[in-house]
Amino acid sequence: MEFRKEKDSIGYIDVPADKYWAAQTQRSSENFRIGGHTMPKEIIRAFAILKKAAAMTNQEAGVLPADKAEAIATVCDEILAGKLDDQFPLVVWQTGSGTQSNMNVNEVVANRAHVLKGGKLTDEKKFLHPNDDVNKSQSSNDTFPTAMHIAAYQMLVETTIPGIEALRDTLDAKSKEFMDVVKIGRTHFMDATPVTVGQELSGYVAQLNHGLRAIKNTLPHLAELALGGTAVGTGLNTPEGYAENVAKHIADLTGLPFVTAPNKFESLAAHDAIVESHGALKTVAVSLMKIGNDIRMLASGPRCGIGELIIPANEPGSSIMPGKVNPTQSEALTMAMAQVVGNDVAINVGGMTGQFELNVFKPVMIFNFLTSARLIGDACVSFDENCAKGIEPNYDRIKQNLNNSLMLVTALNTHIGYDNAAAIAKKAHAENSTLKEAAIELGLLTAEQFDEWVRPENMI
Amino acid sequence: MEFRKEKDSIGYIDVPADKYWAAQTQRSSENFRIGGHTMPKEIIRAFAILKKAAAMTNQEAGVLPADKAEAIATVCDEILAGKLDDQFPLVVWQTGSGTQSNMNVNEVVANRAHVLKGGKLTDEKKFLHPNDDVNKSQSSNDTFPTAMHIAAYQMLVETTIPGIEALRDTLDAKSKEFMDVVKIGRTHFMDATPVTVGQELSGYVAQLNHGLRAIKNTLPHLAELALGGTAVGTGLNTPEGYAENVAKHIADLTGLPFVTAPNKFESLAAHDAIVESHGALKTVAVSLMKIGNDIRMLASGPRCGIGELIIPANEPGSSIMPGKVNPTQSEALTMAMAQVVGNDVAINVGGMTGQFELNVFKPVMIFNFLTSARLIGDACVSFDENCAKGIEPNYDRIKQNLNNSLMLVTALNTHIGYDNAAAIAKKAHAENSTLKEAAIELGLLTAEQFDEWVRPENMI
Amino acid sequence: MEFRKEKDSIGYIDVPADKYWAAQTQRSSENFRIGGHTMPKEIIRAFAILKKAAAMTNQEAGVLPADKAEAIATVCDEILAGKLDDQFPLVVWQTGSGTQSNMNVNEVVANRAHVLKGGKLTDEKKFLHPNDDVNKSQSSNDTFPTAMHIAAYQMLVETTIPGIEALRDTLDAKSKEFMDVVKIGRTHFMDATPVTVGQELSGYVAQLNHGLRAIKNTLPHLAELALGGTAVGTGLNTPEGYAENVAKHIADLTGLPFVTAPNKFESLAAHDAIVESHGALKTVAVSLMKIGNDIRMLASGPRCGIGELIIPANEPGSSIMPGKVNPTQSEALTMAMAQVVGNDVAINVGGMTGQFELNVFKPVMIFNFLTSARLIGDACVSFDENCAKGIEPNYDRIKQNLNNSLMLVTALNTHIGYDNAAAIAKKAHAENSTLKEAAIELGLLTAEQFDEWVRPENMI
Amino acid sequence: MEFRKEKDSIGYIDVPADKYWAAQTQRSSENFRIGGHTMPKEIIRAFAILKKAAAMTNQEAGVLPADKAEAIATVCDEILAGKLDDQFPLVVWQTGSGTQSNMNVNEVVANRAHVLKGGKLTDEKKFLHPNDDVNKSQSSNDTFPTAMHIAAYQMLVETTIPGIEALRDTLDAKSKEFMDVVKIGRTHFMDATPVTVGQELSGYVAQLNHGLRAIKNTLPHLAELALGGTAVGTGLNTPEGYAENVAKHIADLTGLPFVTAPNKFESLAAHDAIVESHGALKTVAVSLMKIGNDIRMLASGPRCGIGELIIPANEPGSSIMPGKVNPTQSEALTMAMAQVVGNDVAINVGGMTGQFELNVFKPVMIFNFLTSARLIGDACVSFDENCAKGIEPNYDRIKQNLNNSLMLVTALNTHIGYDNAAAIAKKAHAENSTLKEAAIELGLLTAEQFDEWVRPENMI
Repeated sequence: MEFRKEKDSIGYIDVPADKYWAAQTQRSSENFRIGGHTMPKEIIRAFAILKKAAAMTNQEAGVLPADKAEAIATVCDEILAGKLDDQFPLVVWQTGSGTQSNMNVNEVVANRAHVLKGGKLTDEKKFLHPNDDVNKSQSSNDTFPTAMHIAAYQMLVETTIPGIEALRDTLDAKSKEFMDVVKIGRTHFMDATPVTVGQELSGYVAQLNHGLRAIKNTLPHLAELALGGTAVGTGLNTPEGYAENVAKHIADLTGLPFVTAPNKFESLAAHDAIVESHGALKTVAVSLMKIGNDIRMLASGPRCGIGELIIPANEPGSSIMPGKVNPTQSEALTMAMAQVVGNDVAINVGGMTGQFELNVFKPVMIFNFLTSARLIGDACVSFDENCAKGIEPNYDRIKQNLNNSLMLVTALNTHIGYDNAAAIAKKAHAENSTLKEAAIELGLLTAEQFDEWVRPENMI
Repeated sequence: MEFRKEKDSIGYIDVPADKYWAAQTQRSSENFRIGGHTMPKEIIRAFAILKKAAAMTNQEAGVLPADKAEAIATVCDEILAGKLDDQFPLVVWQTGSGTQSNMNVNEVVANRAHVLKGGKLTDEKKFLHPNDDVNKSQSSNDTFPTAMHIAAYQMLVETTIPGIEALRDTLDAKSKEFMDVVKIGRTHFMDATPVTVGQELSGYVAQLNHGLRAIKNTLPHLAELALGGTAVGTGLNTPEGYAENVAKHIADLTGLPFVTAPNKFESLAAHDAIVESHGALKTVAVSLMKIGNDIRMLASGPRCGIGELIIPANEPGSSIMPGKVNPTQSEALTMAMAQVVGNDVAINVGGMTGQFELNVFKPVMIFNFLTSARLIGDACVSFDENCAKGIEPNYDRIKQNLNNSLMLVTALNTHIGYDNAAAIAKKAHAENSTLKEAAIELGLLTAEQFDEWVRPENMI
Repeated sequence: MEFRKEKDSIGYIDVPADKYWAAQTQRSSENFRIGGHTMPKEIIRAFAILKKAAAMTNQEAGVLPADKAEAIATVCDEILAGKLDDQFPLVVWQTGSGTQSNMNVNEVVANRAHVLKGGKLTDEKKFLHPNDDVNKSQSSNDTFPTAMHIAAYQMLVETTIPGIEALRDTLDAKSKEFMDVVKIGRTHFMDATPVTVGQELSGYVAQLNHGLRAIKNTLPHLAELALGGTAVGTGLNTPEGYAENVAKHIADLTGLPFVTAPNKFESLAAHDAIVESHGALKTVAVSLMKIGNDIRMLASGPRCGIGELIIPANEPGSSIMPGKVNPTQSEALTMAMAQVVGNDVAINVGGMTGQFELNVFKPVMIFNFLTSARLIGDACVSFDENCAKGIEPNYDRIKQNLNNSLMLVTALNTHIGYDNAAAIAKKAHAENSTLKEAAIELGLLTAEQFDEWVRPENMI
Repeated sequence: MEFRKEKDSIGYIDVPADKYWAAQTQRSSENFRIGGHTMPKEIIRAFAILKKAAAMTNQEAGVLPADKAEAIATVCDEILAGKLDDQFPLVVWQTGSGTQSNMNVNEVVANRAHVLKGGKLTDEKKFLHPNDDVNKSQSSNDTFPTAMHIAAYQMLVETTIPGIEALRDTLDAKSKEFMDVVKIGRTHFMDATPVTVGQELSGYVAQLNHGLRAIKNTLPHLAELALGGTAVGTGLNTPEGYAENVAKHIADLTGLPFVTAPNKFESLAAHDAIVESHGALKTVAVSLMKIGNDIRMLASGPRCGIGELIIPANEPGSSIMPGKVNPTQSEALTMAMAQVVGNDVAINVGGMTGQFELNVFKPVMIFNFLTSARLIGDACVSFDENCAKGIEPNYDRIKQNLNNSLMLVTALNTHIGYDNAAAIAKKAHAENSTLKEAAIELGLLTAEQFDEWVRPENMI
């Protein structure tokens, strides 16, 4: 590989000759050989948005010449178009302020712009200075949290919420379709009084609707942007009105309701917005874990399980048991949700360990947030398309279980009292007989009364 | 101890002669000798509220005679007044539906009412039947989650939120009081550009305000009551209009905006409202962990730490080091918040493991919720009264640190550029000199320019 | 209530006249009104052991007169006998070093000894000084972690391990008893090839045996005692040989293999031994969660579930569904294990947040550890006695399921290949016929071959 | 892209013409478009080891011809050499048994071998059958957990343990080097009695040594291999002696002490070995969090913090504050450890949610395990090389702090008692004087006595 020399306040360092990044990016890539998680591309793109917005705002404030602002914006558009994806090699496990990824963007923008202007990477003086121009009126300390909020908000509205909604809509349609299919209910995993298939599914729909509302409740805090706080929240080295104006530009560029954070000290020193919003994500994860588990258990069998639902057979289930089909979408879904619940703790630890004017667990927090937000969205879509849309009741099995159940006796409570009803159920269980036989034998009611009072279709 | 015989559908069992509870309570107390956590008293009181409301609703619906309804209400009032506190011996680690605590309440109400009516505990027939009368139109499966929501909501509005608000108010007042006290800022735990004491405190205020909003966002879900769903959510064995009416009575009795849950299947089978709301509590815990840690570190010393804040010396700090004073309120606060963060995981596990029509991790979920909600409220009050109210700046130390800091050089960025400013800071650091000396020696600016440009009071 | 004046280095304070504690305990009880968790009694008793051991060691070293040492030992014995249980009112949420509980013990020992010597609590000068005598050669910073290790070790060997072993033994006996009861296996919650009831149970036994070994692996670290490190680990103010000798006395008094920690700095500044050991406890919790869930699902029904195991019916299961019996011991067990998994996170947070020479999350860490260790022990005993001992196979159901299963086709793989076997299973499933019928119809083998090759009893 | 048709028991599907995988891999890649985490390459390589070992064992047992066994081994060697890395596209979020990754390996081995034998991918009949030959005597249910243990064990001994040891060795050398550098100790983040720099570092060494032992204690459970259990643990369709022999081959191929698991039911149905071992990893994470935090706080400043350690300045710290240097290695280390603590919860959830004969959270469990094990190893190496090796005491600052400290008064306890010593410290603090001045003024001792008794170098 060929190299060129680049310099920062530490000194000179070799950089691959064909890369736009400069000394600080190179240094980070050498100093942090940890794991393999590169900074999420959503963060890089959020940086492109905010750098462009900052350049426009700086120009309007008269602190950046128009040609420099335009040069910055041009490269940012290239980043957003995915043309420079190989220029951001840094990993999550770097400095906790994300400074090195901010500088990575600053360096790439400065050097790429210089080349677009006809310059060479080896020119000592460049058209743009990474700090004085590209990072003007900014600090890593306010840009990185701004990128966190942009990326998190975008992921929620583009991936997470639509994914949940798609699954919710399918379950809602199925709920309505099967609202009259009466089946046995189960509490404590034991036979209970009847419900309908549609009622069961309606519970899942209610869970997801509540989860969607919980996520949406957290969006206003995520909409607050740190940009304008610079190094410690005071806004040192920013022109008048900068914070408000740059937030407006970001709102315009993204079409999302971003505003400048009313308190920048909070925005730099804490990431409670991330903690709060991920708290909603893990609530949805808890819901999806329940839904995924229920469906696979209701579809269990085919002959020795519960077997009341039929789910699509998408692939051979076993490398050794021929003909086996497994609830693999439930498994992928619940595994992903286990990850989200774990990520929540990583985010809590990061959130609680910030100090003074700066939380330095920024990269690990947003890395986990974006992972969870994507997993929920993707897993919902996968589960929806490959499982939920194909759910059908197994009518034969449902009918057989329903008629068998001893808990239909509950309908007699209001007629003969709890204690007498219990005696009937216990007798039928002990003698492996039907409730009707036991009831009549105990002389507690007549066959006609039984037939009138114990009707599953009236118990729902 | 003397005993009497009590009977349930399993058979006879000895019960302490002087206790109002009956067979099922006794059985539970013998079958679950686990840990020592009794069912929270807030749950018992919530049960008293809902039993009274159910009795009133049943009477209005014509399915319970007035004298029975009144008898139930009378005992419920006694429970609420704390007169029967020794009648609820059961532990958290019982059946996961809380059935045994529901029956504990049913049994105590039935037997106590019988005694109040002049009967004896040994009478075979009682004025009220625990299932047919006290539990009328109810199931453990809808009463226990209703009690969970009542207890959780009450704890939040009576203890948690007021505690946070009290601390928030103190920090807000202190923030305003010290808004002009300029001090060094710290990022990465390293010296940074200046902030004021008031600005730092304002960040904490913003965190708590966001946390309060996050908690309040979860109240509507907690306001939904399961009552009326009975065994599996279908409302079997309830009179017309029961669910809506009983929720109104509970709202009246508590003065809180409870409503009947639109979907009872969700209310029994999942406790996402608890998961969601505790997600907000753990967000506040994360905030408080940061605040507690910051304050103890800012107050560290007295001579070899940061020492920029002075906090009250409430007690001798050491059993071996004479005269030592420690930030004990910060320690209690942060320990309590560690507990909340752990409780969150216990709640997640409980929430995700429900099955079909019933989540059977109800007691462990509400136990952890109430513990956290109380800890946050109490710890905030304790920290507020014994620490926050007494916070004072250590002016001498603050001034000394501020004047010493190399990061004041940042003010020169806009005048001489980042690279030149860096050269000044590095020279001063290496030579243990002042910024001004280094700047002049490097010939980058004059003494007059330095004095004009580098003014901490203009950097905030 | 009557009060007397007590004094510490902060000043005078009113103390209830009839209590042995003095100023520092009183101050803590007033300054920390948080939650309701009093310091675990196991910690108080561990303190009694170590105070007695320290007194003996100090006497032997010639730094404490014999009569003072004896006086200390006498009161410590009273504490161990439970005679002074109402003298330790402090809560967990106090100073993070546990100093106030150490001083509580010092004060009670000093004052109680003075009374035993014939003095009055109001005497200005006492026979023992709480710091100079009772706390001699000690600091809270080494006594509290010593008490943590003593209490943790004792709880593990007295409650946790025996509880797990009791359950393990029952499952092992049941495993052997039912080793030949062939039943259908289930993978992915779907029908699979056969296993025996005994084989399934043997897996649980293996889990618990591994868990026991994991716990025992952590005992050597817990056996290391901090005592002798005093304030910061250097052993300031201790006589020659003190650390080794006091550990020997503690080992003698407890009958447990305690030794002095080779590195006292680690013992005060970190509680990795607690983190490590609780890591083993949560591993067992994960095992027990699986075992508890499996058993309740295998026992589900009675008519519409899996129903292959019969478990004891210990109490009525429902307040509304007559005759219902639920797997309540599984529910209590799994709820308790959810708590342990949550406690693990609280302990991690406490463990990671220590600073410099002292971790100040000691009370929250040991509180969670002892809670978990007791919950596991108690829940295992409860589950063992009230559920595991009564487990019986439901032979009819087991036979019916086994003969029904399509996965017996796996036995044909080695005779006709995976693809042909799959064709048989799929045909039988689609036509709701038997494997044998499908196999013959496909012409892949004869009825005789099928009967010879497909024998569940040969597939285990 | 060009495609060919491949077939499995579900039917035909298009597969990229140039890929070795077949129908089941293709199906999985289409059915599980979730997140972007591909199955860790360590798992693929572990599969190559076990497939080769199985082929050798099958050949020796006479159930697989030599030429087939050799063909399998040849392709496995190619996988191990990294030549087929682009043939394993499947993600973690697939079926919970990892069946699809097992089939991915089976398909690639079969098809690649066929090509190596001169065949074409479009040939209907291949030299090897993925199930009947490559998967012979195996099931996903025993191969995947075997791959988990191989990959986990290898990662621990190749990356995790050496990384920790490297850091431990550096800290140990530094501890010895600075054993006599007396400095102030800190408890509760407050000034305390003296320690040496070496003593502080020795505590970290002790933590890491305990952590290494904790990890090593978990290796025997990880050394147990499931292979030979096949579908449900019974070993159906395996030849005599297979389980023991295949474990021996794996031990030979890896040079690690693998053995066949004594109980295969546990090995398939639970992954407590992973839970247990990760419990040790999170213990180390807790230790490293403390160490990383301590070092950055001790190095804080340069002028307004504690500043007692000097750490390497590896890169510019700030994009806005010129000359700033930050403890970035501490930040990367502690962020990574936050991830490990979160991963622990994901693993717990996966471990506890297995059912009956098979845990179906295998991929998420091993994914998190390998992530954590690598992060710890890599982060330790990075921290070691870029920070720990360069740690130096800041002698001036250390001396200044030490002489300033009021807690040197503790040395007087044994001479004048705790109460008198406290009076001196309080007076000096209040009057901002020295201890010596206060002591003399109070008349409690002479200047000579003070100088003799209060000597920091004697207090360690």
